[in-house]
Amino acid sequence: MLKLYYSPGACAIASHIGLEEAGATYEVEKIDLRAGQQRTPEYLAINPAGVTPALATPRGVITQNAAILAYVAQTHPDARLADLDDPFAFARLQAFNGWLASSLHPAIGKALFSRPPLEGPAKDEAIQIALQKYDLAENHLLAGAWVMGADHSMADGYLMVFTRWARQAGLLDLARFPKLNAHLDLVQSRPAVQRVLNAEGLAAV
Amino acid sequence: MLKLYYSPGACAIASHIGLEEAGATYEVEKIDLRAGQQRTPEYLAINPAGVTPALATPRGVITQNAAILAYVAQTHPDARLADLDDPFAFARLQAFNGWLASSLHPAIGKALFSRPPLEGPAKDEAIQIALQKYDLAENHLLAGAWVMGADHSMADGYLMVFTRWARQAGLLDLARFPKLNAHLDLVQSRPAVQRVLNAEGLAAV
Repeated sequence: MLKLYYSPGACAIASHIGLEEAGATYEVEKIDLRAGQQRTPEYLAINPAGVTPALATPRGVITQNAAILAYVAQTHPDARLADLDDPFAFARLQAFNGWLASSLHPAIGKALFSRPPLEGPAKDEAIQIALQKYDLAENHLLAGAWVMGADHSMADGYLMVFTRWARQAGLLDLARFPKLNAHLDLVQSRPAVQRVLNAEGLAAV
Repeated sequence: MLKLYYSPGACAIASHIGLEEAGATYEVEKIDLRAGQQRTPEYLAINPAGVTPALATPRGVITQNAAILAYVAQTHPDARLADLDDPFAFARLQAFNGWLASSLHPAIGKALFSRPPLEGPAKDEAIQIALQKYDLAENHLLAGAWVMGADHSMADGYLMVFTRWARQAGLLDLARFPKLNAHLDLVQSRPAVQRVLNAEGLAAV
């Protein structure tokens, strides 16, 4: 049995969506980041990095959304979450997910979730840096309608994490980001995504 | 023909090493980050994110070290850079490389390469945060002797990027980081790595 450790609405929802889209058999355990549960000895024994997501499998724990999503895709090939037989297509998908993890996530995370919160010019600067990365997604990386073009993939639920955060913060301007807005609506319309939002106690935004 | 865009000693050396270890047929083009060549129109047409590495293939460009390394591993299976037939082992490798990209790289990059450079307490704090991530690698993530244990993989040349930077900055204390120091020496002893260092105009550290 697979077990996903997640925090509601945090980036682990990407892996949660991947599992649900795949039709995987799994359970979930909530880690309350605001309460510091990611730093308890129990959780550090699961993921010593002290972050979510972590996916416990019968053979051990997998961390990092991009790695978990690729694992779910490879072990549930019928769900067609990735083009598994084409190394180039798979690499493009991995590159996009890697960009989300290493570039978009830290940028918007710094702008919105720094502790202590950023204020004044420091916050404005962090927002501008983040928005330039959304520009990159809007104008170059999002093939549309889905991230990779005509077909849904494991990248779509992952991008949604960050477009949700931006829309909730009033940053996903429709005129500046028409493709990202349409993508967010499209992803949130998927039954599997709606089930995951519901399971995490969230609503579409 | 594959073509790797890199900057000497920057993180693209991970992909460079992957190509060399794989015995791939490839050429390289230097992008001088300090001179801002990553922001020229010519390079932005290759990678609109304006960073290295980028690997041009006959079908298009792949970015992100973790994605490039997986692509090289999958297209050169005889080099055994990854366990391609075991989704769990592949995911563990991807998780490690994803952690390098999204956690260790930004932490040590902030400490050493911020522009303008960090000074005083801000630099000290950034270094302490980075060193805690090296602790995580030393005490939990590096199986040893290689990253994944008994076998060399595409993760080893990637980890070396950051242990090189740390050693060059005097941060890779032997008493605190014995495994990381031994790993760095082991990776730098590989003929393929020596060829890449030489090609980039670098020496072992």
